[in-house]
Amino acid sequence: MKIIIVGATGTMGQHLAGAFETEHEVIRVASTGGDIQADITSPESIENLFKQVGPFDALISTAGPTYVGPWEKMTGHEFRKGLEGKLMGQVNLVLIGQHYIKPKGSFTLITGALTHDPQKNFANASAANGAVEAFVRAAAIELENGIRINAVSPTVIEDSPQYFPYFPGEIPTTMRQLEYGFRKSVFGANTGQVIKPG
Amino acid sequence: MKIIIVGATGTMGQHLAGAFETEHEVIRVASTGGDIQADITSPESIENLFKQVGPFDALISTAGPTYVGPWEKMTGHEFRKGLEGKLMGQVNLVLIGQHYIKPKGSFTLITGALTHDPQKNFANASAANGAVEAFVRAAAIELENGIRINAVSPTVIEDSPQYFPYFPGEIPTTMRQLEYGFRKSVFGANTGQVIKPG
Repeated sequence: MKIIIVGATGTMGQHLAGAFETEHEVIRVASTGGDIQADITSPESIENLFKQVGPFDALISTAGPTYVGPWEKMTGHEFRKGLEGKLMGQVNLVLIGQHYIKPKGSFTLITGALTHDPQKNFANASAANGAVEAFVRAAAIELENGIRINAVSPTVIEDSPQYFPYFPGEIPTTMRQLEYGFRKSVFGANTGQVIKPG
Repeated sequence: MKIIIVGATGTMGQHLAGAFETEHEVIRVASTGGDIQADITSPESIENLFKQVGPFDALISTAGPTYVGPWEKMTGHEFRKGLEGKLMGQVNLVLIGQHYIKPKGSFTLITGALTHDPQKNFANASAANGAVEAFVRAAAIELENGIRINAVSPTVIEDSPQYFPYFPGEIPTTMRQLEYGFRKSVFGANTGQVIKPG
């Protein structure tokens, strides 16, 4: 399979690229570094990405910039970080990418437990996650040619211990659980699902 | 109670205003008409609204512009209609309104069954709903001074039969059920809840 990984230089993206490249052609996409550079907040940049890659079998996104910070400092301005990044960035990967993906291909987006289990400082990520998860369910009944779409929703990531203090009571998602969540979406047959790894 | 109803000239807003004004002071807010005009896609307009109203006990929003139309015509451009309207509009009502609302006041936002039960043509509304519902859960743990926040999530509205054909299998939410959903949020004690009326 030809698999695009957006966010390939991040903690999750690096692990997934390493895991999948032994058996598949992996295209690493990131804002800096990787095989191809793309800014997911720019539809033009996304279009350019797909033009360079050509037809592909699966797109994995682990790219989700959001505003993290105290509520009292959050205005609509800060709130837009997650809207432009984790929400519109991922939505545009699908709306544009559907014209390049092969029949029976798949999109797998990233959300997170914050959709249903909020934590202080992360309201923007909660909203972006909730939007992406509902979008995934809606897109699943619209996409044609057998194209599937799912989200993977981990808790705090095992390899990002710096975030543990912000997620009291959340059992971290191991890198293996995360990887298998994406495997379920990419190599399975489900669509419109929010996959909670582990 | 002094209750602000945003979207007061719409089908839901008119009903709620009529139901609540017998016992409460209702401020009707709409883009045109009503007691005060406000454009919820403009933070300045929202700020101006609250300056005019002064301290209040409850804000009800039934305002949710979204893009409705065929998937194949939806790009990021169309998708922004719901992002600026139903999502950011309602988020800004809370982020700005929290500085004007009285202690123990409440915000009640509008979402809808499309969060979990998508229908063709409504992917933008699904995403906006999902974002608002997750935001409500996150805001509930951030708001101070006993301020509460909930969402009301109806199916298709009884008094909007023109939408029935787009919602096969959805039993319409009656106006009474809708009203009681909002009553539960405004006059009850819950917070962070997505109330499904009926």
